[in-house]
Order: sequence, then C-alpha cells, then structure tokens
Amino acid sequence: MEMAKRNALVAQSGGPSPVINASLFGVAEACLGSGQVDKVFAARHGIEGVLLEHLFDLGRQDSAELKRLMITPSAAAGSCRYKLKDSYDKDYRRIIEVFRAHDVGSFFYIGGNDSMDTADKVARLAREMDYDLKVVGVPKTIDNDLGDAERTLIDHTPGYGSCARYWANLIRNVGEENRAMAPSECVSVLQAMGRDSGFITAASRLGDPERELPLLLFLPEAGHTAEAVCDLVNDGLKRWGRVIAVVSESLMTDADSHKVDGFGHVEYGASRTTAMQTVVNLLNSRKLHARGQATGQVPGVLQRGCSIEASGVDRQEAWRLGQEAVRLGLSGKSGIMATILRASDKPYQVRYDSVPLHKMANAARKLPPEWIAPGGTDVTDGFIRYAAPLIGDCAAPYESENGLLRFARLDYAEEERKLPEYVPCGFGAGE
Amino acid sequence: MEMAKRNALVAQSGGPSPVINASLFGVAEACLGSGQVDKVFAARHGIEGVLLEHLFDLGRQDSAELKRLMITPSAAAGSCRYKLKDSYDKDYRRIIEVFRAHDVGSFFYIGGNDSMDTADKVARLAREMDYDLKVVGVPKTIDNDLGDAERTLIDHTPGYGSCARYWANLIRNVGEENRAMAPSECVSVLQAMGRDSGFITAASRLGDPERELPLLLFLPEAGHTAEAVCDLVNDGLKRWGRVIAVVSESLMTDADSHKVDGFGHVEYGASRTTAMQTVVNLLNSRKLHARGQATGQVPGVLQRGCSIEASGVDRQEAWRLGQEAVRLGLSGKSGIMATILRASDKPYQVRYDSVPLHKMANAARKLPPEWIAPGGTDVTDGFIRYAAPLIGDCAAPYESENGLLRFARLDYAEEERKLPEYVPCGFGAGE
Repeated sequence: MEMAKRNALVAQSGGPSPVINASLFGVAEACLGSGQVDKVFAARHGIEGVLLEHLFDLGRQDSAELKRLMITPSAAAGSCRYKLKDSYDKDYRRIIEVFRAHDVGSFFYIGGNDSMDTADKVARLAREMDYDLKVVGVPKTIDNDLGDAERTLIDHTPGYGSCARYWANLIRNVGEENRAMAPSECVSVLQAMGRDSGFITAASRLGDPERELPLLLFLPEAGHTAEAVCDLVNDGLKRWGRVIAVVSESLMTDADSHKVDGFGHVEYGASRTTAMQTVVNLLNSRKLHARGQATGQVPGVLQRGCSIEASGVDRQEAWRLGQEAVRLGLSGKSGIMATILRASDKPYQVRYDSVPLHKMANAARKLPPEWIAPGGTDVTDGFIRYAAPLIGDCAAPYESENGLLRFARLDYAEEERKLPEYVPCGFGAGE
Repeated sequence: MEMAKRNALVAQSGGPSPVINASLFGVAEACLGSGQVDKVFAARHGIEGVLLEHLFDLGRQDSAELKRLMITPSAAAGSCRYKLKDSYDKDYRRIIEVFRAHDVGSFFYIGGNDSMDTADKVARLAREMDYDLKVVGVPKTIDNDLGDAERTLIDHTPGYGSCARYWANLIRNVGEENRAMAPSECVSVLQAMGRDSGFITAASRLGDPERELPLLLFLPEAGHTAEAVCDLVNDGLKRWGRVIAVVSESLMTDADSHKVDGFGHVEYGASRTTAMQTVVNLLNSRKLHARGQATGQVPGVLQRGCSIEASGVDRQEAWRLGQEAVRLGLSGKSGIMATILRASDKPYQVRYDSVPLHKMANAARKLPPEWIAPGGTDVTDGFIRYAAPLIGDCAAPYESENGLLRFARLDYAEEERKLPEYVPCGFGAGE
C-alpha cells in the first residue's frame, strides 16, 4: 500500500531580514517540487499562528508571486516574538494538536536561537507523544549571533550579509556627507543593531577596509562608557577634524529605560533614550575639538528591511538553506538545523550540513576577541577577511513597478480551522 | 584685440543631496566646454572656502573622476552652513578681493534660500565696487522649501526627487516589516527631515499612493501636539491593528532642546530629544490598542545621502540646471537663479528659465494647504500628481567597486593663495 502524502508547515520567527523570505521560498519550492508532500502550509506570525491555527496554503499562490519572495524583504508569512517558556506545557501540546489536525508531517522553522529552542522542544514532545513529525530549523538573524565563536556549528547566519552590505554602503555614503559637512556637522553618530553582539557594528568597517575614513566603531564587546566614547571621538577630531562614530544600540544603556520583548530580550528600538541620543547629547554639551556639532542617525528597522541593499550571496544562501532543510526533513531527519560552514575565504566557498537543534538553542555568539583591534574602536583584518565575501559583488536584483520596489503579493486566505479557539499561555501574561 | 578669458568659480552650500554633485558637474562641464572660460575653480566648503581662499581646480581633474560626480552623493567640493550676515561688510569685501585676485568673472552658487541671499548680495556689491562679475544661482534642497507656494518661481528643487524616492521605497520596505512584526512591534515611527516644511514627510505617501498601508503622516503644517499624535496612532491601531507614523523632525519640539546652525536655523539632527523619541516614549508609556509596542527610526542624513536611492529624473534636472546657469552667466546675465518650471504633469514635462535672486532669498515654502488632506494626517491626490514624476521610473545608475559603491575621487590640491590670511567675521562669533 502506498503511504498517503502528508503536509508540511513552515513558519518565520524573530526580527526580519532582507532574505528570510528567500528561505521561505526555498522551503516552499523544495516541498512542492519533491512529490513527497501534499500541502505546504505557512503559519501567520510564526508560532503564534500555529497556536491560533492561523494557517495559509503556499501551494495555492500564483507561482510568479511566490517566486517574488526571493526579492521581498521582511517576513512575508508574518513573524512574532512569542517566547514558548518551558512552563507553557499547554502551548506545546496545542502545537502537536494543530499539527495532528492538519496532518503536518514536517515542520520547518526559520528563526534565531530562541526559535531553534522552540523547534527542539516541539521535536522532543512529538516523540514523547508518539506523533510522527520531522522538525528542521533554518537559521536566520541579521545579528549573526547564532552559534559558537569558533564557527564549528555555523559560519554565519543568512540576513547578516545583507545587513553588513547595508552598513558598508551606508558608511561610504556617510563618508561623503561627513567630509562635505565637517565645518558645521563634524561628528556623525550612527546607531547599529545587534544587541550585545558587535557583528553589525563591525560590518561598518567593510565600507572602508583601507581605513581612509575617520571611522570609530564602538562595539558592545569593548564596553565603552558614554564618557569614554566622547573622549575617543574628541581624540578623533584632533586627528582628523571630523568623525563617523558607529555605536551599538546596547552601549551605555540604563536598564530602566528599556522595553523587553516577548523573548525577554531588551527591545532597543523602543528605548526611552537611544545610545545615539546619549552620545550626541554628551558631545554637544561639551566643547568639541572642532567648530561643528554632532548629529545622530538611528537606521533602526531600515538596516534589516532595505531590499535594495540585499546581498546576492546572502540571498542565494538563504534560499539554499531552505532547500537543504526540506531535503533533510524529507529524508527522515529531525531535531536538526540546516547549517552553512566555511570551506575557504578566498575564493569564498561554503558547504551545507546539519547540526542538532539543542546545540543552537539559546547560544548567543559575540564578536570573538581576536577580531577586536587593540583600543576597542576597530576590528582586525581577520574580521574583514571573514565578513567581506558575505556582502556580495553588487546589489542583488530587484523588481520595479511604477518606479517603486515591487514585492510578492501573497494570498493569505486562511485555511479552515479544525480545532476550538485557543488562548496562548503568553497572552494572559500581559504580553 | 581679443578679450583674455577669465576664470569661473563654483561653490556648494547647505545640506547635501544625492544630486548636488550633478549640478557641480553640469557647471564644470559647461564651463570647460564653452571655450569662454579659462580655469574653473571650486571653493572648498562653500563660501567659507572663498573667504579662506581655499580653492581647487576642476579643470585639472581626471575626466572620468569628474564625470563620476554624476553618481556621487553629498557635496564633493564641500559644503558649509556659514551665514553671511548683512553686518559682515568685511566678509563681502573679502569675497570680491578673492575673486579679483583669481580673476573670477563668473560665480555659480549651488544652494538653498540662504545661499541665494548671499549670491544676491555678492552680485550687488560687485556692481557697487565696479568689479565685473556675473553671479548665477543653482537651486538645491531636499526640503523643497525654496520659492513660492504657487510655484511660479520654481516648481521643485533638485534633491527633493531623490529624497522623495528614498522615502517612497522606505515606506514600501517598512510596510512589509510592519505587517510582519505587528504582533510585537505594532507601531513604526519614522522621523523625516524638512524643518518647518512638510514636503519630505508628504513624500512617504508616494510609497503607497493607493492607500493600502496603515500610514499616518504628521506634517509640520498640521501642527499636531505629541498627545494628538498618540491619539491618532491609537485610532489607527483600532482600525488597522498596526500603524506606520511618519513624523516631521520639527513636530512637538521644545525650543530649548535644540541646537542652532550657522544660518540661525534649528539643527534637528543635533536635538537633545528627537520628535521620534517623544512619540515613541509617549506611546510606550500608554496602553496601546494592540499587544505590541512602538519602535523608532531616525534616517537623518541617510535620506539626503543615499546615492543608491537617487532619482534619475532628479539627477538629470540637477545636471541640466548647472548647465543652464553657465549658459546664463556666459551670456552676460547676473543676479539670477536658473530655475525649473512645470509644463505638464502627464506626461511630465518641464522648462528651464531664470528668476531674480532677490525673489528667492530667504523665502521658505511650506506644503500648500490644498495638498493637506482633511484631518492633517495625509496629503491629497493633487500632491501625488505633483510629486510622483519626480522620483523617476527606477533607481538611477551607479557604479560598483569590490562590491561597494564607487564615487568620484577628486584631487583637492589647493590653488596657490594670493592674499594674506583672513578670519571670517562669523568665526569670532563663537561659530
């Protein structure tokens, strides 16, 4: 007797990137082309969509629109920051119930370390409950903070290369601006994302690998105080007459002034006082070693959502990891994450593999000490060799319509619900 | 006897734009190709460079580098915010002395209303001092606040179309982000430049002319208080579940919290508390009509310096206005500004003309009331018809090198100084 084909479900979690939808397309394309899967559901807003039984069918999409996921930023299925705490037994059971109701045989979860933790727990619970489910994670995060410092688990995460490209070109543009405006606006302060990990701040160096610009990086790993930042900027003004200062969002922060997201992480985008503002105000209240003043920029979500700055390399790798995850899941593997490892820097070569989910869960990688230059305001050439290939040769392709960027338009028509309504544990907890 | 050829001088002033260098190239190219000009000097950092006799020779540049000015953002000759006050007689005389020392017969000043005021005064002083000088202004400002509301003096300023394009695509990208993250990040606050004029804030509507996004514009002309902004955002949350709020940098500001630039204008980039922060903090301290929170973005100088978002239409017009200015100056005209007027919206057609400098001086155009929609949180379709053609059909060409944007590399070797050193009046004034 031939086995009936079962369904697959894919979901996206955490902060978006310009290429997380390339992974979504990779999963959808591989499932639909495999001949082994019946329907491919996507959950609206990550695990929240699973809990609420908000599903839609990727196989029903117009194929041209589905393919446009390759050039669409952010998370087209919708993302969330819902943290499945260990104590949320009801939530975990609900997930299995929803999978059972929709005959989901494989679950692909695109996300960062928290999501890999969730995926790991779902895989284990399915085994405990004797429900046949293959769970495979697909890595993503612009922060590049997933995995170990030695890069034996993963070399870099999809999303990072595009964010790095955004910063590299930003620094080149701001370099022109800063040189032009130095008499009146001599310090340009730029706030980078990345929480406690300095990979994004570090990427600004890729815009000036020859070190021709008056660029100072304030990495979270170096732990400068606001006073120290201002002293170093003033030293830079003495030397160069102008300074571009990239400060990590997590620098000089007062814990009370921050909001916390559903994962329990500080949400710096919602801070009462940004790191940029602290530095700009302190600089402008002091006498600067130049005639001008400091101005501030907070690119915020723009650094994780500007599709026109996507890296072609990053986009291809994100797509490929989606494909690899499906290959692994359909070959019977479970409780693993598709991963990418570096084979060589020059020429840039990678290989694809898998790692157990439990090894990825809740690991937060920082910029390794050997890539932080003495003084803590720059990175080493070793970092440049590592990161430069990730930004690609040129801007990745995009599509225009009436002069503007054209993105995928999906049909979010909801799959019929088969279970009673459910209120996720976290919703009652004031989330 | 054949007249000896005299020299020309060009300078850039005020905040940069992605296309102010296209005007610089237009001036240089037209002068060098005219056969009527000997040397073409550029002043380093605008009128400051004239006062300090910091000049360099555009005719000596590598021609490929000079041409790359077309794709180079910011102000390659350098800009400044030095305000030539009426009382600075010594400064005005110094300008004429420097021009005389370098046999400058025509002066092209690329800038906004303050710069047109300066150019006007220089033209008049030259006549008073019987020094033969043709002065022609070239308009620029991303704010589009130059001229009259009826657009009889100028239809739009070069720089605005590119900044509008930046905002239009930004809104499309942020639209994807906001839809994806709405459960946890339901309000995205974006701060737009433009001082007291709402043209830039208004341009965000170009990213969603069909009004499909939950987009609210807080124009300076509508004068909302922070409380009113929060009430309207909460109304939006009730309707849409998520909101993208574009707030003008000059909204809800406490005069004490701001820095003032050399022109006496508030420098919002250096504010102690940004409009974004005021709105984000007020929203997050209240109970939102949605589960998530508000996050903030301040693109700052990125909206006036991102060459990859330049509008091709804008770039061509900026170049052409530089050319027109030279044509006018070399035909003996002076005390005027080259201008651009709208011939038709559809198809988009313009014509080039000139207006007296004194009519442009210190005029600050606001968004006309008829383009502000009732309620003050949107613009009308009339505005869209006006502004949509300015952003162009697609991204303008750019050049890459090692995967990054490649800009012009000029030779700034300083022209030999012929006069004693000089300290500009404003330098003593604590500037």
